[in-house]
Amino acid sequence: MKVPLTLVTIVIEGLLKDQLIQLLRRHGATGFTITRTEGAGSRGVRASDWEGPNLRFECIVSRESADPILEDVARTFFENYSVIGWLTEVSVVRGTKFTSGGG
Amino acid sequence: MKVPLTLVTIVIEGLLKDQLIQLLRRHGATGFTITRTEGAGSRGVRASDWEGPNLRFECIVSRESADPILEDVARTFFENYSVIGWLTEVSVVRGTKFTSGGG
Amino acid sequence: MKVPLTLVTIVIEGLLKDQLIQLLRRHGATGFTITRTEGAGSRGVRASDWEGPNLRFECIVSRESADPILEDVARTFFENYSVIGWLTEVSVVRGTKFTSGGG
Repeated sequence: MKVPLTLVTIVIEGLLKDQLIQLLRRHGATGFTITRTEGAGSRGVRASDWEGPNLRFECIVSRESADPILEDVARTFFENYSVIGWLTEVSVVRGTKFTSGGG
Repeated sequence: MKVPLTLVTIVIEGLLKDQLIQLLRRHGATGFTITRTEGAGSRGVRASDWEGPNLRFECIVSRESADPILEDVARTFFENYSVIGWLTEVSVVRGTKFTSGGG
Repeated sequence: MKVPLTLVTIVIEGLLKDQLIQLLRRHGATGFTITRTEGAGSRGVRASDWEGPNLRFECIVSRESADPILEDVARTFFENYSVIGWLTEVSVVRGTKFTSGGG
Protein backbone atom coordinates (compact mmCIF):
# COMPACT_ATOMS: atom_id res chain seq x y z
CA MET A 1 0.00 0.00 0.00
CA LYS A 2 3.01 2.28 0.57
CA VAL A 3 4.78 3.51 -2.55
CA PRO A 4 8.19 5.18 -2.88
CA LEU A 5 7.74 8.55 -4.56
CA THR A 6 9.50 11.91 -4.66
CA LEU A 7 8.40 15.08 -2.92
CA VAL A 8 9.24 18.15 -5.00
CA THR A 9 9.44 21.34 -2.94
CA ILE A 10 9.77 24.69 -4.67
CA VAL A 11 9.93 28.07 -2.93
CA ILE A 12 9.15 30.86 -5.35
CA GLU A 13 8.10 34.49 -5.51
CA GLY A 14 4.33 34.88 -5.20
CA LEU A 15 3.93 36.55 -8.58
CA LEU A 16 5.07 33.33 -10.29
CA LYS A 17 2.26 31.23 -8.85
CA ASP A 18 0.18 30.69 -11.99
CA GLN A 19 3.23 30.16 -14.14
CA LEU A 20 4.56 27.47 -11.79
CA ILE A 21 1.17 25.75 -11.59
CA GLN A 22 1.10 25.54 -15.38
CA LEU A 23 4.64 24.16 -15.45
CA LEU A 24 3.74 21.48 -12.88
CA ARG A 25 0.59 20.53 -14.79
CA ARG A 26 2.59 20.15 -18.00
CA HIS A 27 4.72 17.55 -16.18
CA GLY A 28 1.62 15.62 -15.12
CA ALA A 29 1.53 16.79 -11.50
CA THR A 30 -2.10 16.65 -10.52
CA GLY A 31 -2.13 17.61 -6.86
CA PHE A 32 -0.06 19.94 -4.77
CA THR A 33 -0.17 22.15 -1.71
CA ILE A 34 0.83 25.78 -1.50
CA THR A 35 1.96 27.49 1.68
CA ARG A 36 2.63 31.17 2.16
CA THR A 37 6.13 31.82 3.55
CA GLU A 38 8.56 34.61 3.99
CA GLY A 39 12.16 34.13 3.06
CA ALA A 40 15.58 35.62 3.35
CA GLY A 41 17.57 35.33 0.17
CA SER A 42 21.17 34.41 -0.35
CA ARG A 43 22.29 37.79 -1.58
CA GLY A 44 23.36 39.32 1.69
CA VAL A 45 23.05 39.46 5.41
CA ARG A 46 21.20 42.72 5.99
CA ALA A 47 17.64 42.86 7.27
CA SER A 48 16.65 44.77 4.15
CA ASP A 49 17.19 41.65 2.08
CA TRP A 50 13.94 40.20 3.39
CA GLU A 51 11.88 39.60 0.33
CA GLY A 52 8.32 39.44 1.60
CA PRO A 53 5.79 36.74 0.84
CA ASN A 54 6.93 33.75 -1.11
CA LEU A 55 5.04 30.59 -1.93
CA ARG A 56 6.19 27.10 -1.00
CA PHE A 57 4.88 24.48 -3.41
CA GLU A 58 4.84 20.80 -2.53
CA CYS A 59 4.06 18.17 -5.06
CA ILE A 60 4.44 14.40 -4.97
CA VAL A 61 5.44 12.75 -8.22
CA SER A 62 7.00 9.57 -9.52
CA ARG A 63 10.78 9.30 -9.14
CA GLU A 64 11.30 9.68 -12.89
CA SER A 65 9.17 12.84 -13.13
CA ALA A 66 11.01 14.70 -10.39
CA ASP A 67 14.28 15.56 -12.16
CA PRO A 68 12.62 16.94 -15.31
CA ILE A 69 10.38 19.16 -13.16
CA LEU A 70 13.30 20.67 -11.24
CA GLU A 71 15.31 21.13 -14.43
CA ASP A 72 12.40 22.88 -16.07
CA VAL A 73 11.97 25.12 -13.00
CA ALA A 74 15.67 25.98 -13.11
CA ARG A 75 15.62 26.71 -16.83
CA THR A 76 12.47 28.84 -16.58
CA PHE A 77 13.07 30.87 -13.43
CA PHE A 78 16.62 30.74 -12.08
CA GLU A 79 18.06 33.50 -14.21
CA ASN A 80 15.60 36.17 -13.17
CA TYR A 81 13.96 35.12 -9.92
CA SER A 82 14.67 33.88 -6.41
CA VAL A 83 13.75 30.23 -6.60
CA ILE A 84 14.79 27.24 -4.52
CA GLY A 85 13.86 23.68 -5.40
CA TRP A 86 14.70 20.35 -3.83
CA LEU A 87 13.73 16.69 -3.94
CA THR A 88 13.04 14.39 -1.00
CA GLU A 89 12.46 10.64 -1.19
CA VAL A 90 9.21 9.80 0.60
CA SER A 91 6.77 6.94 1.07
CA VAL A 92 3.17 7.64 0.18
CA VAL A 93 0.04 5.75 1.06
CA ARG A 94 -2.03 4.94 -2.00
CA GLY A 95 0.67 6.51 -4.12
CA THR A 96 -0.75 5.78 -7.54
CA LYS A 97 -3.02 8.78 -7.06
CA PHE A 98 0.01 11.06 -7.35
CA THR A 99 1.80 9.69 -10.38
CA SER A 100 1.12 10.85 -13.90
CA GLY A 101 -0.45 7.58 -14.92
CA GLY A 102 -2.62 7.27 -11.84
CA GLY A 103 -6.20 8.29 -11.38
CA MET B 1 22.26 12.79 20.40
CA LYS B 2 20.78 12.49 16.89
CA VAL B 3 18.08 9.85 16.49
CA PRO B 4 16.58 8.40 13.29
CA LEU B 5 12.83 8.97 13.31
CA THR B 6 10.03 9.37 10.79
CA LEU B 7 8.31 12.60 9.82
CA VAL B 8 4.64 12.04 9.08
CA THR B 9 3.12 14.74 6.88
CA ILE B 10 -0.63 14.83 6.29
CA VAL B 11 -2.49 17.43 4.22
CA ILE B 12 -6.15 17.41 5.06
CA GLU B 13 -9.31 19.52 4.77
CA GLY B 14 -9.56 22.04 7.58
CA LEU B 15 -12.83 20.67 8.92
CA LEU B 16 -11.06 17.42 9.86
CA LYS B 17 -8.59 19.12 12.20
CA ASP B 18 -9.94 17.90 15.54
CA GLN B 19 -10.59 14.43 14.23
CA LEU B 20 -7.00 14.11 12.96
CA ILE B 21 -5.55 15.44 16.22
CA GLN B 22 -7.47 12.75 18.10
CA LEU B 23 -6.26 10.08 15.70
CA LEU B 24 -2.63 11.20 16.14
CA ARG B 25 -2.97 11.26 19.93
CA ARG B 26 -4.38 7.72 19.92
CA HIS B 27 -1.15 6.62 18.20
CA GLY B 28 0.94 8.27 20.88
CA ALA B 29 1.97 11.34 18.87
CA THR B 30 2.55 14.04 21.45
CA GLY B 31 3.75 17.01 19.43
CA PHE B 32 3.01 18.31 15.98
CA THR B 33 2.86 21.47 13.90
CA ILE B 34 -0.03 22.63 11.77
CA THR B 35 0.33 24.94 8.79
CA ARG B 36 -2.47 26.50 6.77
CA THR B 37 -2.15 25.73 3.06
CA GLU B 38 -4.16 25.86 -0.08
CA GLY B 39 -4.17 22.94 -2.43
CA ALA B 40 -5.17 21.84 -5.85
CA GLY B 41 -6.61 18.36 -5.88
CA SER B 42 -6.08 15.54 -8.28
CA ARG B 43 -9.56 15.56 -9.75
CA GLY B 44 -8.95 17.83 -12.69
CA VAL B 45 -7.05 20.66 -14.20
CA ARG B 46 -9.54 23.51 -14.08
CA ALA B 47 -9.07 26.50 -11.81
CA SER B 48 -12.39 25.73 -10.18
CA ASP B 49 -10.86 22.63 -8.62
CA TRP B 50 -9.06 24.79 -6.10
CA GLU B 51 -10.26 23.57 -2.77
CA GLY B 52 -9.54 26.43 -0.39
CA PRO B 53 -7.75 26.20 2.94
CA ASN B 54 -6.29 22.88 3.93
CA LEU B 55 -4.15 22.04 6.91
CA ARG B 56 -0.70 20.48 6.71
CA PHE B 57 0.11 18.42 9.79
CA GLU B 58 3.67 17.43 10.64
CA CYS B 59 4.44 14.98 13.34
CA ILE B 60 7.65 13.16 14.25
CA VAL B 61 7.27 9.62 15.50
CA SER B 62 9.23 6.42 15.91
CA ARG B 63 9.77 4.40 12.72
CA GLU B 64 7.39 1.67 13.92
CA SER B 65 4.58 4.12 14.72
CA ALA B 66 4.59 5.77 11.30
CA ASP B 67 2.98 3.06 9.17
CA PRO B 68 0.05 2.44 11.53
CA ILE B 69 -0.68 6.17 11.61
CA LEU B 70 -0.80 6.50 7.83
CA GLU B 71 -2.88 3.35 7.51
CA ASP B 72 -5.34 4.66 10.06
CA VAL B 73 -5.52 8.00 8.23
CA ALA B 74 -6.18 6.18 4.97
CA ARG B 75 -8.87 3.95 6.51
CA THR B 76 -10.58 6.87 8.25
CA PHE B 77 -10.52 9.60 5.61
CA PHE B 78 -9.58 8.45 2.11
CA GLU B 79 -13.01 7.35 1.00
CA ASN B 80 -14.74 10.66 1.63
CA TYR B 81 -12.11 13.39 1.81
CA SER B 82 -9.12 14.86 0.01
CA VAL B 83 -6.20 13.64 2.09
CA ILE B 84 -2.53 13.19 1.25
CA GLY B 85 -0.08 11.54 3.62
CA TRP B 86 3.58 10.69 3.32
CA LEU B 87 6.55 9.55 5.40
CA THR B 88 10.08 10.97 5.36
CA GLU B 89 13.08 9.52 7.18
CA VAL B 90 14.68 12.24 9.29
CA SER B 91 17.27 12.71 12.03
CA VAL B 92 16.11 14.47 15.14
CA VAL B 93 18.07 16.05 17.93
CA ARG B 94 17.01 14.77 21.34
CA GLY B 95 14.59 12.47 19.57
CA THR B 96 13.31 10.56 22.59
CA LYS B 97 11.02 13.51 23.25
CA PHE B 98 9.02 12.61 20.14
CA THR B 99 8.53 8.86 20.52
CA SER B 100 5.65 7.34 22.38
CA GLY B 101 7.79 5.99 25.14
CA GLY B 102 9.79 9.19 25.62
CA GLY B 103 9.20 12.01 28.03
CA MET C 1 23.44 19.78 -11.66
CA LYS C 2 21.74 18.08 -8.70
CA VAL C 3 23.64 18.18 -5.41
CA PRO C 4 23.05 16.18 -2.20
CA LEU C 5 22.48 18.59 0.67
CA THR C 6 20.69 18.64 4.01
CA LEU C 7 17.41 20.37 4.78
CA VAL C 8 17.39 21.71 8.33
CA THR C 9 13.87 22.26 9.69
CA ILE C 10 13.37 24.03 13.00
CA VAL C 11 10.01 24.80 14.62
CA ILE C 12 10.38 27.48 17.25
CA GLU C 13 8.38 29.99 19.26
CA GLY C 14 7.83 33.21 17.33
CA LEU C 15 9.61 35.41 19.82
CA LEU C 16 12.90 33.61 19.02
CA LYS C 17 12.85 34.57 15.35
CA ASP C 18 15.67 37.11 15.30
CA GLN C 19 17.83 35.04 17.60
CA LEU C 20 17.48 31.99 15.37
CA ILE C 21 18.21 33.99 12.22
CA GLN C 22 21.44 35.21 13.81
CA LEU C 23 22.38 31.67 14.83
CA LEU C 24 21.79 30.39 11.29
CA ARG C 25 23.82 33.24 9.79
CA ARG C 26 26.72 32.47 12.12
CA HIS C 27 26.78 28.96 10.64
CA GLY C 28 26.92 30.33 7.12
CA ALA C 29 23.29 29.71 6.18
CA THR C 30 22.48 32.33 3.62
CA GLY C 31 18.93 31.57 2.57
CA PHE C 32 15.92 30.16 4.35
CA THR C 33 12.14 30.21 4.38
CA ILE C 34 9.93 30.91 7.35
CA THR C 35 6.36 29.65 7.67
CA ARG C 36 3.88 30.55 10.37
CA THR C 37 2.46 27.46 12.10
CA GLU C 38 0.56 26.52 15.15
CA GLY C 39 1.68 23.61 17.25
CA ALA C 40 0.67 21.34 20.02
CA GLY C 41 3.45 20.59 22.43
CA SER C 42 4.47 17.36 24.02
CA ARG C 43 3.52 18.25 27.55
CA GLY C 44 -0.02 16.94 27.65
CA VAL C 45 -3.17 16.08 25.80
CA ARG C 46 -5.52 18.88 26.81
CA ALA C 47 -6.69 21.51 24.34
CA SER C 48 -5.24 24.18 26.59
CA ASP C 49 -1.76 22.98 25.71
CA TRP C 50 -2.04 24.65 22.31
CA GLU C 51 0.77 27.11 22.21
CA GLY C 52 -0.25 29.61 19.55
CA PRO C 53 1.84 30.78 16.61
CA ASN C 54 5.21 29.18 16.06
CA LEU C 55 7.62 29.64 13.20
CA ARG C 56 8.90 26.86 10.98
CA PHE C 57 12.34 27.61 9.57
CA GLU C 58 13.73 25.71 6.60
CA CYS C 59 17.28 26.07 5.52
CA ILE C 60 19.37 24.06 3.08
CA VAL C 61 23.01 23.58 4.00
CA SER C 62 25.96 21.32 3.27
CA ARG C 63 25.89 17.93 5.00
CA GLU C 64 28.75 18.91 7.29
CA SER C 65 27.09 22.15 8.41
CA ALA C 66 23.82 20.51 9.44
CA ASP C 67 24.87 18.76 12.65
CA PRO C 68 26.61 21.79 14.18
CA ILE C 69 23.51 23.93 13.48
CA LEU C 70 21.15 21.52 15.23
CA GLU C 71 23.55 21.10 18.15
CA ASP C 72 23.80 24.86 18.52
CA VAL C 73 20.00 25.16 18.40
CA ALA C 74 19.69 22.49 21.09
CA ARG C 75 22.33 24.11 23.30
CA THR C 76 20.82 27.57 22.92
CA PHE C 77 17.08 26.91 23.19
CA PHE C 78 16.14 23.44 24.43
CA GLU C 79 16.33 24.16 28.13
CA ASN C 80 13.89 27.05 28.14
CA TYR C 81 11.80 26.87 24.99
CA SER C 82 9.65 24.56 22.88
CA VAL C 83 11.88 23.79 19.92
CA ILE C 84 11.92 20.90 17.47
CA GLY C 85 14.66 20.42 14.90
CA TRP C 86 15.31 17.74 12.32
CA LEU C 87 17.48 16.97 9.30
CA THR C 88 16.36 15.56 5.95
CA GLU C 89 18.65 14.45 3.14
CA VAL C 90 17.59 16.19 -0.07
CA SER C 91 18.77 16.83 -3.62
CA VAL C 92 19.00 20.42 -4.70
CA VAL C 93 19.26 21.91 -8.15
CA ARG C 94 22.19 24.32 -8.44
CA GLY C 95 23.09 23.42 -4.89
CA THR C 96 26.31 25.42 -4.59
CA LYS C 97 24.16 28.48 -3.99
CA PHE C 98 23.17 27.07 -0.60
CA THR C 99 26.51 25.99 0.85
CA SER C 100 28.72 28.28 2.84
CA GLY C 101 31.39 28.38 0.20
CA GLY C 102 29.03 28.99 -2.69
CA GLY C 103 27.95 32.23 -4.25
